[in-house]
Amino acid sequence: MILVNGEQQNTIAVTDRGLHYGDGLFETIEIIQGQPVFLTEHLARLKAGCCTLKIPYPPTALLLEEIAQVSKNCTHGALKLMLTRGTGGRGYRQPELVQATRFIALHPYPEYPESYATQGVDVRFCTTRLGLSDVLAGLKHNNRLEQVLARAEWQDEYQEGLMLNLHEQVIEGTMTNLFVVKDGVLYTPKLGLSGIVGIIRQIVLSLALQQKIPVQEFELSRGFVMAADELFLTNSLIGIWPIKTLEKKVYSVGAVTQLVQQAFTAYKASTMQKC
Amino acid sequence: MILVNGEQQNTIAVTDRGLHYGDGLFETIEIIQGQPVFLTEHLARLKAGCCTLKIPYPPTALLLEEIAQVSKNCTHGALKLMLTRGTGGRGYRQPELVQATRFIALHPYPEYPESYATQGVDVRFCTTRLGLSDVLAGLKHNNRLEQVLARAEWQDEYQEGLMLNLHEQVIEGTMTNLFVVKDGVLYTPKLGLSGIVGIIRQIVLSLALQQKIPVQEFELSRGFVMAADELFLTNSLIGIWPIKTLEKKVYSVGAVTQLVQQAFTAYKASTMQKC
Repeated sequence: MILVNGEQQNTIAVTDRGLHYGDGLFETIEIIQGQPVFLTEHLARLKAGCCTLKIPYPPTALLLEEIAQVSKNCTHGALKLMLTRGTGGRGYRQPELVQATRFIALHPYPEYPESYATQGVDVRFCTTRLGLSDVLAGLKHNNRLEQVLARAEWQDEYQEGLMLNLHEQVIEGTMTNLFVVKDGVLYTPKLGLSGIVGIIRQIVLSLALQQKIPVQEFELSRGFVMAADELFLTNSLIGIWPIKTLEKKVYSVGAVTQLVQQAFTAYKASTMQKC
Repeated sequence: MILVNGEQQNTIAVTDRGLHYGDGLFETIEIIQGQPVFLTEHLARLKAGCCTLKIPYPPTALLLEEIAQVSKNCTHGALKLMLTRGTGGRGYRQPELVQATRFIALHPYPEYPESYATQGVDVRFCTTRLGLSDVLAGLKHNNRLEQVLARAEWQDEYQEGLMLNLHEQVIEGTMTNLFVVKDGVLYTPKLGLSGIVGIIRQIVLSLALQQKIPVQEFELSRGFVMAADELFLTNSLIGIWPIKTLEKKVYSVGAVTQLVQQAFTAYKASTMQKC
């Protein structure tokens, strides 16, 4: 089911600024037994993004109602919530009265083999570089050509590709955030100029601190990542995937990764009970 | 009139990758008496962009036919030609068989006062910075959030805003390319990491060379631009606009600008006769 501004439809106005300029933001939310996972965090990020891009954020009650409507009969799904700056004429200038377009679509949950979470996944480095932008870094906006180009670099040989930015720092996967364990410290790339601040990334950072694991946001070189003791990836649909191989080099699912996975599983279950 | 894949319609599939990722390219083409201006150049740039982004370029004959259909009764208009990577599922990965969406829309020509071309326009510097990207720089792609944010910085007090990139180099206007005349040399910013390689920019560069005006693509600081003898802007709808004031500092419409304007007007007229 797809709702556009509350109406079930499969089309959108050709004048939508999402289409013309990628002028929008989105969230990908796991649905379990009709319940959106980490919904508070997703809506908070969306609202913060709207604030930065000056896209009017719709009433929360309206979003909650529409998300519930789309999710209610879903056992396990992936919900895409997108807001664009609405319709407009030709040119970058926005209309005086902007009315955001709300887009809520439910997709089947991608059925990944369980081994991805337990034994890990095969990963490569992408050739496509992430650009640098002070205003757009961190946001989950719709300007995603770099990810599209990076994801086109391989087919099924790998489950994810890591992207470096123009400063040759490793930033993230095409659809995941990256964590690196080295000598007992948990590192994750700084996202001040490139990358998306993921919901699961932020949860993992606070859970690690609770577990007394030292945590650092850092500028990570390719060599530093390759020399890791453990590596793992996060996003809202996969949760946490250890990296089993990176450029054919083998990594084990180590103690820190397992500790974080256990803490995450417990935390996720606790938030679902609260709903 | 708007044609989507050859059909007259006002909507587009919600699954279009243009909407979700800004996964597309566009051209803005002036139409005079039913004739598209510099169409060869626009289609060549679009095709080159498709090659870089690996979006399948439709048969040229089909594009020409649809452009002619939309333009035929138009006295003076602005045609937007857009290609996206077509429809697709959730996620950055593209479908195995990509079929580009063709979008052709005719808008009224924006009726600018004639004084903009003869006496010049008022211009400011934008606060929003252009990001840096090796793969996307130069292309007229649909990831245009930076231009949207920059254009939102003012209302009608100025006709254009100049944008610097993260390296603090002046790159272009939100919708124009920039030329700077200093000591008889015509400078325009290098666009290797930011900016759009405009059709009129390229035509002006070759016309200037024909006129024996020394030309340089250069990294331009804000100070260098402010210290110019003459400044002008170009794009496919405005042609050439001298800058009358930049941040309230007054510039005259100098001899080089006038020479380039005359050469451009003559060249444009000659290409229209050929059609």
